[in-house]
Amino acid sequence: MSFFDIPAGYRFTGMASGIKKSGKLDLALIYSNQPARVAGVFTRNKVVAAPLQLTQPRVTAGFCQAVLVNSGNANACTGEAGLQIARETSAILARELSIAEDLVAVASTGVIGVQMPIAPFAQGIPKLVKTLAADQVTVVAEAIMTTDAFTKVASAKGDGYSVLGLAKGAGMIHPNMATMLGFVMTDAKVAPELLDSALRRAVKNSFNSITVDGDTSTNDLVLLLANGAAGGEEIQPGSEVAECFCQYLDRVLLDLAKMIVRDGEGASKLVEIRVTGAASEEEARTVAKSVATSSLVKTAFFGEDANWGRIIAAVGYSGIEVDQNKIDIRFNQILVVRNGLSTGPELEAEATDVLKLDEFVVSIELNQGEAVSSYYTSDLGYEYIKINADYRT
Amino acid sequence: MSFFDIPAGYRFTGMASGIKKSGKLDLALIYSNQPARVAGVFTRNKVVAAPLQLTQPRVTAGFCQAVLVNSGNANACTGEAGLQIARETSAILARELSIAEDLVAVASTGVIGVQMPIAPFAQGIPKLVKTLAADQVTVVAEAIMTTDAFTKVASAKGDGYSVLGLAKGAGMIHPNMATMLGFVMTDAKVAPELLDSALRRAVKNSFNSITVDGDTSTNDLVLLLANGAAGGEEIQPGSEVAECFCQYLDRVLLDLAKMIVRDGEGASKLVEIRVTGAASEEEARTVAKSVATSSLVKTAFFGEDANWGRIIAAVGYSGIEVDQNKIDIRFNQILVVRNGLSTGPELEAEATDVLKLDEFVVSIELNQGEAVSSYYTSDLGYEYIKINADYRT
Repeated sequence: MSFFDIPAGYRFTGMASGIKKSGKLDLALIYSNQPARVAGVFTRNKVVAAPLQLTQPRVTAGFCQAVLVNSGNANACTGEAGLQIARETSAILARELSIAEDLVAVASTGVIGVQMPIAPFAQGIPKLVKTLAADQVTVVAEAIMTTDAFTKVASAKGDGYSVLGLAKGAGMIHPNMATMLGFVMTDAKVAPELLDSALRRAVKNSFNSITVDGDTSTNDLVLLLANGAAGGEEIQPGSEVAECFCQYLDRVLLDLAKMIVRDGEGASKLVEIRVTGAASEEEARTVAKSVATSSLVKTAFFGEDANWGRIIAAVGYSGIEVDQNKIDIRFNQILVVRNGLSTGPELEAEATDVLKLDEFVVSIELNQGEAVSSYYTSDLGYEYIKINADYRT
Repeated sequence: MSFFDIPAGYRFTGMASGIKKSGKLDLALIYSNQPARVAGVFTRNKVVAAPLQLTQPRVTAGFCQAVLVNSGNANACTGEAGLQIARETSAILARELSIAEDLVAVASTGVIGVQMPIAPFAQGIPKLVKTLAADQVTVVAEAIMTTDAFTKVASAKGDGYSVLGLAKGAGMIHPNMATMLGFVMTDAKVAPELLDSALRRAVKNSFNSITVDGDTSTNDLVLLLANGAAGGEEIQPGSEVAECFCQYLDRVLLDLAKMIVRDGEGASKLVEIRVTGAASEEEARTVAKSVATSSLVKTAFFGEDANWGRIIAAVGYSGIEVDQNKIDIRFNQILVVRNGLSTGPELEAEATDVLKLDEFVVSIELNQGEAVSSYYTSDLGYEYIKINADYRT
């Protein structure tokens, strides 16, 4: 049924519970046959949705067996009533699955500030648990969608174990507002401190290279579950096996992150902004982010205009000390700027052909060090406005 | 001829020199009959256009008699050749006006990275100086336009003197990229240290409350000239007269800044984001800026959707410590959020009527202090994409 590597010991399901008036799938369940170790990365927004307030301490405690996710209502800015709903849904699920309540994680995505009804959960959850199956991965991926145009699933097969990731999110101009949910499951047996550091590293180079660190929505959440069902030795931090595990995890998360950019609301292009020759990785990252988030740069991509002037201006206002006379800029292999000056109309015309591609790399060489970093972005077109102006109507 | 208060001792003119292929006005000259004291605020972009490199030390020296501005070509990222062009244009003008070269300020706005031709200046400037006249203010305002939809002029009449401001700029999503030029002339006699501090204060509460401090284009510049032609005592810092002068200056610059927002590329609404009850003015400003620059908030304005969820989320990710349970939000007088919770669908429907207005205020009360700050923003609609995707074609 599935083209993905499904880790052992997990089951999945989803349903249309009625939260979405459209009747689309809106309630998803991920279940591990045994309690899994869990690590999580949570929104840094000061306004935190109710389900995250409930889930965060449970994840910190280290174990999780079931993840319940709804779309259509974020249960954010809903006060004590919203928190009560989150608690009730968790309690209903724990009862139906006969597991401890603190092994349940809940997450929500959708409109902010609307009270969440309990009925869809009360009526839906008993049915939901009956349909759990190992091959229902894509149903979960579909049930967590909001403005997403397609489901996002990625996987990798390690030595005796698998890593499977599901995500929800559509890139935006100000990516900090795109609620991003990510759920990663592995059957590897992983030492808890490794689980946490591996997730943080993978998130930094994937989801946090499309969204802005610290600037996240009220509901952002990435969970990594490791149930150990694959058996074998526990993977310890610092080992070679650990580095392999991290690389598989990195790859799955980067694949998902690129899907999110590709699904940018109204986006038609996936563009890597690769900064090289920076004095430090932090500086490379700051410059890449400045360019990747510039609306003028992104509209130029949409217009298929090799407008390097907007790129160099975004480099200049990134706040990093740069020498404009040392900057080289390439669209794929085409050098359009050398030492801060145009290489001429012929190369710019060639670069325009690169802009017509669905996917390309803008390389910015600062020539002031060795550090490198990439951000991933999309073009900005009419569809973004259309989707976001009408989102609630 | 003019409805503005024109300070004594200034003359103005503009022409179509051929820099713009469209044949529109593209070269402007402001001239003071006597050397004026000058203060300036310059871009903080690390990539600085050639004309600014020439002008900045001259302004720092304290005097200016002529300001030459072209549109259509930013003369930025043009290297030594661009700097040479800026020097030559300045020399030609000084010769034609028979003034010292270091009394000339030059500024440019337009496309980045294209070498500036000398011919339009060499041929145009001798004609330009012959057409100087006191009533040609709006010609200057027109000749400095790029994507501007209308000219921007504002003035105020003080006690025995006038303040006249001209600006160019169209607000953007990432306002840091909107090249903003502002030229303010007064015939008041102002002590140099007051001139500088008055300009910095006025810019902070106007142009820098629509654009992002430190995040500016390669060409941004605001000059304030005071030629003392009105006569009278020199206005000294700390005096009551000085405070009056500052208030007139504040008002002229805020009027111009609002025009820039109103002329936001594709904008149809002028929205003040007013944050009250913050712990400090700096925090109020940070929150106001976070909301004002959110693309999701701005597209909701375009959709006339009282989507306070996006507003409260932007408050939350501003980085300031806020208590979500204390936040009140109003659209004009309509309270849609009290203590972080919706006040219900009836008030939200009333708020939707406010969103239909051309101009309204979003008030965000944090209830954690006394400090207040405002940012001015616009809606974000299809026109923005249209203008910016096609800018160079």
